[in-house]
Amino acid sequence: MYNRILLAVDLTDESIKVANKAVGLCKATGAKLTILHVIESLNYAYGGDVPIDITDIQAQLQDTAKERIAILEDQIDAPVEECCITQGGIESEIHRIAEEKQVDLIVVGSHCRHGLALLLGSTANGVLHGAPCDVLAIKVVKD
Amino acid sequence: MYNRILLAVDLTDESIKVANKAVGLCKATGAKLTILHVIESLNYAYGGDVPIDITDIQAQLQDTAKERIAILEDQIDAPVEECCITQGGIESEIHRIAEEKQVDLIVVGSHCRHGLALLLGSTANGVLHGAPCDVLAIKVVKD
Repeated sequence: MYNRILLAVDLTDESIKVANKAVGLCKATGAKLTILHVIESLNYAYGGDVPIDITDIQAQLQDTAKERIAILEDQIDAPVEECCITQGGIESEIHRIAEEKQVDLIVVGSHCRHGLALLLGSTANGVLHGAPCDVLAIKVVKD
Repeated sequence: MYNRILLAVDLTDESIKVANKAVGLCKATGAKLTILHVIESLNYAYGGDVPIDITDIQAQLQDTAKERIAILEDQIDAPVEECCITQGGIESEIHRIAEEKQVDLIVVGSHCRHGLALLLGSTANGVLHGAPCDVLAIKVVKD
């Protein structure tokens, strides 16, 4: 049914719940699992004149992501084909990696937030829009 | 993993593709399948003074839906727990039935349309938003 599942995680505490659903599907369908975390590009508020050393921050974000994705991989009760950390726009990176790895299902957490997010739409909505394959949105917080 | 899957279909030609994915998941996870079709409420452009007999049209829509859902059920290679036809807003009816039947996954087709739909969002996006459970959006048309 599915051969290759891309699990996109934000590496928050809830990621393990989303991961467990993806793992369950991998086991049920025999699909291989790739984990992806996208580090959102920093928006530099200052033109070229950045008052802090961005390179350090980027490296730090990268290190933290590496540590957290390794912890997640340890918690997961299934073999992981590959762990990817990329940088850019969240939705566009998920779509890009999904195409590159030729996955047939993207699994993503769907957070219930109220207020502004209701108007702006969630990451899950953004991922759904223009995805190259099926998308499974895992409900993370109950209404 | 999933116990009860709600397959929401618009009963177009593509519904069988979406249904087959839902059936595959039911087989893989042992979940029971409920099929739902929502007849969108007609917007009466005229206040109380409707120049045509709406009752007939509603009955006709209901009959067509019944026929088509029966054909779909025949095409599906799995037992169907229940077929529901309801009337109202598509997203709100899907959410309502999902809660009523206590499903843990909604499966819905995700159409790729360009232009206005890009701004307005698809039914799949609408279903995702505020869903009481996980949502699997099946890619129907390739980009």
